Amino acid sequence: MKRTLYAGAVRSENIGQTVTLTGWVSRRRDLGGLIFIDLRDREGIMQLVINPENVSSEVLSTAESLRSEFVIEVRGQVIARSQANDKLATGQVELEVASLVVLNTAKTTPFEIKDDLEASDDTRMRYRYLDLRRPEMLKNFKLRHNVTKSIRHYLDDLDFIDVETPILTKSTPEGARDYLVPSRLSEGHFYALPQSPQITKQLLMNAGFDRYYQIVKCFRDEDLRGDRQPEFTQVDLETSFLDEKDIQDLTEGLIAKVMKDTKNIDVTLPFPRMSYDDAMNQYGSDKPDTRFDMLLSDVSEVVKKADFKVFSEAPVVKAIVVKAAADKYSRKDIDKLTEFAKQFGAKGLAWVKFVAGEFAGPIAKFLPEISSELADYLTLSDNDLVLFVADTLDVANATLGALRSRIAREQDLIDPDKFNFLWVIDWPMFEWSDEENRYMSAHHPFTLPTAESAHELEGDLSKVRAVAYDIVLNGYELGGGSLRINHKDLQERMLKALGFTAESAQEQFGFLLEAMDYGFPPHGGLAIGLDRFIMLLAGKDNIREVIAFPKNNKASDPMTQAPSTVSSKQLAELSLKIGQ
Amino acid sequence: MKRTLYAGAVRSENIGQTVTLTGWVSRRRDLGGLIFIDLRDREGIMQLVINPENVSSEVLSTAESLRSEFVIEVRGQVIARSQANDKLATGQVELEVASLVVLNTAKTTPFEIKDDLEASDDTRMRYRYLDLRRPEMLKNFKLRHNVTKSIRHYLDDLDFIDVETPILTKSTPEGARDYLVPSRLSEGHFYALPQSPQITKQLLMNAGFDRYYQIVKCFRDEDLRGDRQPEFTQVDLETSFLDEKDIQDLTEGLIAKVMKDTKNIDVTLPFPRMSYDDAMNQYGSDKPDTRFDMLLSDVSEVVKKADFKVFSEAPVVKAIVVKAAADKYSRKDIDKLTEFAKQFGAKGLAWVKFVAGEFAGPIAKFLPEISSELADYLTLSDNDLVLFVADTLDVANATLGALRSRIAREQDLIDPDKFNFLWVIDWPMFEWSDEENRYMSAHHPFTLPTAESAHELEGDLSKVRAVAYDIVLNGYELGGGSLRINHKDLQERMLKALGFTAESAQEQFGFLLEAMDYGFPPHGGLAIGLDRFIMLLAGKDNIREVIAFPKNNKASDPMTQAPSTVSSKQLAELSLKIGQ
Repeated sequence: MKRTLYAGAVRSENIGQTVTLTGWVSRRRDLGGLIFIDLRDREGIMQLVINPENVSSEVLSTAESLRSEFVIEVRGQVIARSQANDKLATGQVELEVASLVVLNTAKTTPFEIKDDLEASDDTRMRYRYLDLRRPEMLKNFKLRHNVTKSIRHYLDDLDFIDVETPILTKSTPEGARDYLVPSRLSEGHFYALPQSPQITKQLLMNAGFDRYYQIVKCFRDEDLRGDRQPEFTQVDLETSFLDEKDIQDLTEGLIAKVMKDTKNIDVTLPFPRMSYDDAMNQYGSDKPDTRFDMLLSDVSEVVKKADFKVFSEAPVVKAIVVKAAADKYSRKDIDKLTEFAKQFGAKGLAWVKFVAGEFAGPIAKFLPEISSELADYLTLSDNDLVLFVADTLDVANATLGALRSRIAREQDLIDPDKFNFLWVIDWPMFEWSDEENRYMSAHHPFTLPTAESAHELEGDLSKVRAVAYDIVLNGYELGGGSLRINHKDLQERMLKALGFTAESAQEQFGFLLEAMDYGFPPHGGLAIGLDRFIMLLAGKDNIREVIAFPKNNKASDPMTQAPSTVSSKQLAELSLKIGQ
Repeated sequence: MKRTLYAGAVRSENIGQTVTLTGWVSRRRDLGGLIFIDLRDREGIMQLVINPENVSSEVLSTAESLRSEFVIEVRGQVIARSQANDKLATGQVELEVASLVVLNTAKTTPFEIKDDLEASDDTRMRYRYLDLRRPEMLKNFKLRHNVTKSIRHYLDDLDFIDVETPILTKSTPEGARDYLVPSRLSEGHFYALPQSPQITKQLLMNAGFDRYYQIVKCFRDEDLRGDRQPEFTQVDLETSFLDEKDIQDLTEGLIAKVMKDTKNIDVTLPFPRMSYDDAMNQYGSDKPDTRFDMLLSDVSEVVKKADFKVFSEAPVVKAIVVKAAADKYSRKDIDKLTEFAKQFGAKGLAWVKFVAGEFAGPIAKFLPEISSELADYLTLSDNDLVLFVADTLDVANATLGALRSRIAREQDLIDPDKFNFLWVIDWPMFEWSDEENRYMSAHHPFTLPTAESAHELEGDLSKVRAVAYDIVLNGYELGGGSLRINHKDLQERMLKALGFTAESAQEQFGFLLEAMDYGFPPHGGLAIGLDRFIMLLAGKDNIREVIAFPKNNKASDPMTQAPSTVSSKQLAELSLKIGQ
């Protein structure tokens, strides 16, 4: 006997056919002298009926022995159901079982295999193979495959060449922390797992590949959260002889195809472009969620006229207006927002409610002279809540940006069916790092500075702008790219600006600098975070839902117990000892 | 200006068009007052002509400055060549240059960018981006992409789901040596890079994915040779509810599609099946090259009648006949073969030449009584050379198998255009390891034993047969697969046979054994070595030719200098010290 078709794929047109199905027992009910089995496979659930009058005593006793998650093979005729079940795709039909074989048995599973799951994350990961049996999970992974298929077809049709780059690479000091792999053949030497194939793909451009792509694992040994895993997957592409607009157009076409192929959504092209400065000033984020408004306003000019030192002495005062929400936020609620605001460096949160044409709240008494000007400036309506942060521009933006997102979720202002893509462009080349006490690359040290600002590499680094572009979806950074440096002198100036000496630049990036001696073409590209993209397409808020075997927050796998101890022989072969 | 099309893609139908091309200067010649440039891009080479009378003095002086590997952009009209060059695909046309811009300059490259390369392997790898510029290399990587594209389309159409499995996994003791990755969060704990996603894909079957595939990197820390690299790529697939014949059929369909899509070759299906025992006995190899004959004959029965102790006292005497080659092998040549034979454990090599109906050579004097019987048995013709090994069956097979391959290459008996696929089936489950002094898995410990032989798990391990199948191409193991164990008791018996205690089995494979408690379906699959497959399709004899950035024989990369030393901070974070 061979399976004729998937159990979940049986339909009315199969009525009358004798078929063989295989799968898992999802449920057994004994009802009115008949035995009903819900048989589950990857395509869905199909009802089986065992009528004691029509089967052998052997089949009957096998049927009576069935428990949930037994693996079975059944053969019989597809018949119409007397009472159709419209909730199931197979609901018009059932299988009249003639023969039945148990292929494997099952103990009681630690949780029931169903979509509204009641199990801890750790239990789900410990029994991941059971968690993945749930229809919702199977759906996520089919979606994932359809997305990568769609991406590949698009890039294949545009003559991109899929090239595999090494996983055992060289550790470099810029960027996040590397995962290391000790070498057995060179004592004290290590490979690093790639954080991205950045330099490698640039070298492929130098090699004349012209258009490269890869769907590739990348690795960062950083602390984990919902949208981060130790290993993650990137849609990585690079092109030669194109400008940033070409690359953005090409990426938009790719996104549009994926959205059409997998969600049947027609996205509008081109995507909006927003400058980094506008994103920070209006949304308080370099990855703005444009599905809702509540933009940040700079009210400094208006409020400095009020007799309120907190406002008049601050470098900047910015505000967001939560429309029609004054009555929804108690003092206690606002205290919670204040605590939240402090996480972003704000010293506090000022607020007023606008009710019946008047400001109310603790600071209202400072505002009488400017109340109508402020109300006009913010176009306030009755019952609006206004939140102010008076601080440096960076702190005000970051705090109000975070509050904006939190409140939008709390107030259900977000349409989950919207997919708002946009480009954030005109990036600064460097970001100041308090931790490192120096400027660091906002993207990476190979990003091309704009022709107009490159002279600031030897001047004010905050003024250097990058030919870089991030693609943002619903408040998440979906990906980013840039044109790259292809001239040695400029690359050397860039590394110098980042604090490299000639020697350290040579030691770390000598091979790239040397490659620039031999006709390195102009080039640029982009990388898209695939896990995050799929997560958003699947409507999830954790990338673990779209990664088959993820790690937990301690970067370990509760199922296999990786990482684990290894033998002393293994350590000796690598010339390693444990301990500080 | 934007590139209109690839330089290598310009054809007669473009004559009269004004186009922009980009690429590398492959050659400049100044001839009869004109300047000729061979412009190279990934699609080929196109001739440019600069006529000083038709261009500005600026373009002319730029043209005169051009050297090999400069990157340029040119614009002009496509014209017919007065003298067509049939060796080039673009040979009917040339570009009459109107404008010319240098995008980047180049120093003299360490080797010329051309297919018949004169550079050491190390130089090629040190300047890999230049090596990859050679048309032949670009062709290999386009072939590689076309192969993976073809494979993906085939498996996508059969409803396989492409699922990514982890790279940071658990170290297991069976198999080759693992690459380890120290954990920062758990002192003294390590991940291992996967040697294959074997258990993971089995768990996906347990999860009900039914048909899985992945084109995936795998890792082995073993000594390197031409067809081995530290990281290599596998076409990995697994299915549920299918038998070995189904999986073989499906694989044959895949191979046939790849051969048609990428080489336009129609392979004959089904592939021949050969038992492991026949392969060893007739070809002296478990991966027989069937492109030529020269099969091994067991001549024990015939030669034991001769008065020659070397033959009569040996466990077995086997021979190969090198047709019409007696005059091609001097004593010195045969001495070399003898040295070669000793590498495989043979104590020596006996030989005779069959010339004018008589045996000649040092042992001919022992054979008069059996000479006509032996000549008949081996169907000898004039000028045949016969090589004998008298030893254990294993040594005789291995030695003559290796001699057979060596002589076929020496004597040019192999048609390089043949692609001989076959299945080797009926595998033993275990192989004796002298090194480990125990039986080890011939494939891996999850392979299903045949129903008829499984009872020998508690008896004679040499008699246990596996439901396993290798696919062989031209003497290379292209891939292999098997049905897998899906019942816990059988898996426990298998691990016990391999010397695991209940505790060590639990410690290493507890998660798999536990998974077998919950309705593990019958399943099986296969993996194909992609690098090796592409190597054979490209007609190369080293997988480095089809891997973009390979490692050398010391597992290091002469370009980036990986592996390299790392900072003491990195070691401290991992709680590691260097040294024994």
